[in-house]
Amino acid sequence: MKKLLFVLCSIGWCTTSAQKLTIEKLDALADVHARNSFAELYELLSLPNDAHMPGDIEKNVRWCESAFAKRGFTTKRLNTSTVPLLLAERKSRQAKKTVLVYLQIDGQPVKASQWEQESPWKPTLKTKDAQGNWKEIPYEKLNGSYERDWRIFARSTADAKGPAAAFLAALDALKALKTESNFNLKVIMDFEEELGSPHLPNAVTEYKSDLAADMLIIFDGPQHIRNEPTLSFGARGICDITLTTFGPRVPQHSGHYGNYAPNPALRLSQLLASMKDDDGRVTIPGFYDGVVLSDDEKKILARVPDNEDEIKQKLGIATTDKVGNSYQESIQYPSLNIRGLDALFVGEEARTLIPAKAVAELDLRLVPGSDPVRLINLVRNHVKAQGYYFVKTEPTDEERQQYPKIASFNAAVSYEAFQTPFDSECGVWLSKAMVKAYGKEPIKIRMAGGSIPISPFVVTLNIPAVAVPTVNPDNNQHAENENIRVGNYVDAVKTFLAILTEKL
Amino acid sequence: MKKLLFVLCSIGWCTTSAQKLTIEKLDALADVHARNSFAELYELLSLPNDAHMPGDIEKNVRWCESAFAKRGFTTKRLNTSTVPLLLAERKSRQAKKTVLVYLQIDGQPVKASQWEQESPWKPTLKTKDAQGNWKEIPYEKLNGSYERDWRIFARSTADAKGPAAAFLAALDALKALKTESNFNLKVIMDFEEELGSPHLPNAVTEYKSDLAADMLIIFDGPQHIRNEPTLSFGARGICDITLTTFGPRVPQHSGHYGNYAPNPALRLSQLLASMKDDDGRVTIPGFYDGVVLSDDEKKILARVPDNEDEIKQKLGIATTDKVGNSYQESIQYPSLNIRGLDALFVGEEARTLIPAKAVAELDLRLVPGSDPVRLINLVRNHVKAQGYYFVKTEPTDEERQQYPKIASFNAAVSYEAFQTPFDSECGVWLSKAMVKAYGKEPIKIRMAGGSIPISPFVVTLNIPAVAVPTVNPDNNQHAENENIRVGNYVDAVKTFLAILTEKL
Repeated sequence: MKKLLFVLCSIGWCTTSAQKLTIEKLDALADVHARNSFAELYELLSLPNDAHMPGDIEKNVRWCESAFAKRGFTTKRLNTSTVPLLLAERKSRQAKKTVLVYLQIDGQPVKASQWEQESPWKPTLKTKDAQGNWKEIPYEKLNGSYERDWRIFARSTADAKGPAAAFLAALDALKALKTESNFNLKVIMDFEEELGSPHLPNAVTEYKSDLAADMLIIFDGPQHIRNEPTLSFGARGICDITLTTFGPRVPQHSGHYGNYAPNPALRLSQLLASMKDDDGRVTIPGFYDGVVLSDDEKKILARVPDNEDEIKQKLGIATTDKVGNSYQESIQYPSLNIRGLDALFVGEEARTLIPAKAVAELDLRLVPGSDPVRLINLVRNHVKAQGYYFVKTEPTDEERQQYPKIASFNAAVSYEAFQTPFDSECGVWLSKAMVKAYGKEPIKIRMAGGSIPISPFVVTLNIPAVAVPTVNPDNNQHAENENIRVGNYVDAVKTFLAILTEKL
Repeated sequence: MKKLLFVLCSIGWCTTSAQKLTIEKLDALADVHARNSFAELYELLSLPNDAHMPGDIEKNVRWCESAFAKRGFTTKRLNTSTVPLLLAERKSRQAKKTVLVYLQIDGQPVKASQWEQESPWKPTLKTKDAQGNWKEIPYEKLNGSYERDWRIFARSTADAKGPAAAFLAALDALKALKTESNFNLKVIMDFEEELGSPHLPNAVTEYKSDLAADMLIIFDGPQHIRNEPTLSFGARGICDITLTTFGPRVPQHSGHYGNYAPNPALRLSQLLASMKDDDGRVTIPGFYDGVVLSDDEKKILARVPDNEDEIKQKLGIATTDKVGNSYQESIQYPSLNIRGLDALFVGEEARTLIPAKAVAELDLRLVPGSDPVRLINLVRNHVKAQGYYFVKTEPTDEERQQYPKIASFNAAVSYEAFQTPFDSECGVWLSKAMVKAYGKEPIKIRMAGGSIPISPFVVTLNIPAVAVPTVNPDNNQHAENENIRVGNYVDAVKTFLAILTEKL
């Protein structure tokens, strides 16, 4: 009997070993397979992945095709008008269900000069010296007895090539266990996430049958700020607005025309100031309509063990905006953020001119119940109500003569929010895997503040979605010096292995 | 007798020929000597002159030393801690008075890529084609029968190497007349005007006796917008403020912290919006105190033949700020201009972040009666009254934890305003010279909107000052594609010659 069991296991018909996985065993497996994967992680991080550069993206697509093919997946490019999405698929013999895994491979643009290393595309291992400064150490040290507090710095270490590589390592660990999941795996890789995944909604519709699954899990995002195991049951959506105000046709000498030619930077400031109060609450009527937190929901949110003093200290702020009564509550509401401002020059380049135009870039985070088109129209109508005439690009001479206040207002919806119940099948299953790996319930986030392009899957495929964030919260995501903590990378391998071995 | 007169004239003791100068004679002399000077103008414009580059400025200083020495001036460098001022002096035998002439040689920084020519330092002659576009033609064409509507494009053509070269040409014309002025000439050249002449006030004090004179005339600035002969009896002063608001220590993901971490770009917008109303009037109490236009003054201002519809059309605006009841009235008041705004990125580079800080560059134009220190303190106290704590550069971690609203506020006074009566000796004398040259009274501006670093001369040397602006008003001063109209250059030679030959 023992012999038969061994034979069955060795050919993959047995899940006994998976069922016996202890925390210690998972840790040991994660340690070995994370270590084995650092070279592959280095390779992946070395590929520039700004989605504005399709040539660079192609190299990332090929790398992923090869990495999944090596692990017994079939791959298929889901072509769009720009770069493709990549779908990798692997069936399990005893599977009844199919899990779709979402990975993001592209990264935000970089300002290389602002990184404290040779290049954002050269993965750089660092440790903190006695003064608390990050000091470079050889990457090869990861092959030896690494320290969990070391960090690997490079674009997309955290967001989200790190989790992608950790998932590959978890697949290798699963193979070493000579077992397989009791569900089929589909992996969808997004190479335009940082552009707002503009082609994803159409692609999900077009390739609906290829993507068919019972649930979606997302290996992206940072853990709770305490850096403890976390599940995230939703995420805000996002849309953006570019608002430009126009002044004189060309910049004018501020001496000759100061007090006479209206200043578009002042007008932009007045518009922006009119949108929010001193507490950061949007004052445009109706902006928060349809978003009501019940007492039960507030209780769920209160269970998240946030230390708000710590958050404030980490951010370097004394007080917060007053949109919710807590951090968790604040991110259950739609937001309106000024992400960029520009008019002529500041600093050494400043010149005594009245600008010809001023530009604000806004992003609006969305929640279930806040229709993005409605929100955009609220903002648009608010600007209009201040007396503005809208042009598409630049006003004509005739428009300049006719309209005292001229602006352009360009908006685009990237994707909507999603929110999955804690007690859904998917939620319960993932929670069990986390308890197996960590011996306790994960922190459960009702809805994360950041956006992931998940709502098209949720809506079009009609499946629930839950995110399994694994990276350290202080990863400088989107900014310079992005990094992943080595301990978080290793734990990501463990988490993903625990999920792959959890019966569904 | 005739022979004696000839001898006396040839040795310079005679001004008879000057007294007989008709408009036609002046035009003929200006034509010849402007034409002779185009090569020298080309040479001068070819020298980069951004005062941020002292090495470049030195070449300009040397060029001026040589140009004035060639014309019988002694020169002296008035040294400062950066680049020197240059004083050139030439005495006349029968002189009782001394006229100090102010010239500006440095130019605003350039964005070379935004110029429609090879380089802002390569003077480029252009004519308008049938479609109204500027088309390059060979610079050498100026040696032939030039057209008055051609333009020479280069940094500082208008502001103010063009007038400087025209003054040199007028000195040559004076020499050709075999006569001399009945006053001594001192010429002070400023090489840091576009930096706000930071060292000029101290230099005027230090070199007070070198600079001693009976009056100051300034060869700088554009004519009235009708591009007709103009005298300007005053100019607004200028000071500037850099206002920075601080948000989280580093830029934060707008999803994770939107609605929570206060946005410094919003706060800056709120501050700026709180300073002015919808009509562009400063709402900070006391800003306009001490500036009262009498009915007589309003009458003088109304004499300026402005066509406000034309001005608005030229600027491309439908309505104006409502600080005064007319263009001339508006520039009799202090102004507060937002000359630059910046927070993170706009356009392609925009990223979903909450900025760490936002910066506004302001310039305040000053008038007599508006003490710059008082105005700066009004703005400073206004910001403070909105609850801001001020830091010098960046807030410390402790300050970040303690103060909800943090800003830095750095101000610098460049120079104050000045205003000389129309019926002063200097004003009457210059008006006579203009009537001689143009057969009619010039347009008289009570106070120009732009600033020139004249008040230190007026205050320290206790002399009146009047500006003789000569360049075309549509010269793109301070911006890209700065230019001088050839006809304005030739008329500048004529104007300066008329002044040099006018008895004082």
